Amino acid sequence: MSADEVAKAFVQHFYQTFDANPEGLAGLYSPQSMLTFEGNQVQGVEQIMGKLRAIGPVKHDIKSMDVQPSNNPNALVIFVTGSIKIGGDNPLHFCEMFQLVSTGPGAYYVHNDVFRLNYGL
Amino acid sequence: MSADEVAKAFVQHFYQTFDANPEGLAGLYSPQSMLTFEGNQVQGVEQIMGKLRAIGPVKHDIKSMDVQPSNNPNALVIFVTGSIKIGGDNPLHFCEMFQLVSTGPGAYYVHNDVFRLNYGL
Repeated sequence: MSADEVAKAFVQHFYQTFDANPEGLAGLYSPQSMLTFEGNQVQGVEQIMGKLRAIGPVKHDIKSMDVQPSNNPNALVIFVTGSIKIGGDNPLHFCEMFQLVSTGPGAYYVHNDVFRLNYGL
Repeated sequence: MSADEVAKAFVQHFYQTFDANPEGLAGLYSPQSMLTFEGNQVQGVEQIMGKLRAIGPVKHDIKSMDVQPSNNPNALVIFVTGSIKIGGDNPLHFCEMFQLVSTGPGAYYVHNDVFRLNYGL
């Protein structure tokens, strides 16, 4: 699979899982994984899952996805923008980046995950 | 310098230079550097500078900055949100990510740069 294909498949899987069954995201992270959500930084699968659970029910709508090769040939960076409804509220702009690191042919984990809402000019 | 200090200094320098003297950004990129600006991807110093010049006069206002260590110990990822005025128009939300890779003690180049406006819900 090309980097574009990996990124597309990852983004589709990530946000569908987040919206439908957030517990299913646990398998994407590893002990080294880091999530910074609205400025709060946690590391490791349990800590990340705790943070994601605390957000509650969400619905993502993806608007753009960009991918670039990282400086490590086994890694790629993905950049997503879109809108998110949190707990049935009005949609807000968000942007999120991931760095995926390969653990074997066709297998990746999320090493970096940074999420920010973007509102209030 | 800690990763936080590097990121803070980089972000301040990057956007001040962009707003005041965009030609000064050339020294931050290398032949491997990649910029994806609103979905258009270019690689290399000249190509990136051409893309940045084409944007014209801008004014950035930074709202948030997050930093994480990359999976390469000599690299870090930086995630920025804020607003941008392009050519004197009304400000728009933007988000941008960088991966900085160290070339020696205290020296970094921008390996990855992805920029997106975030508007229209």
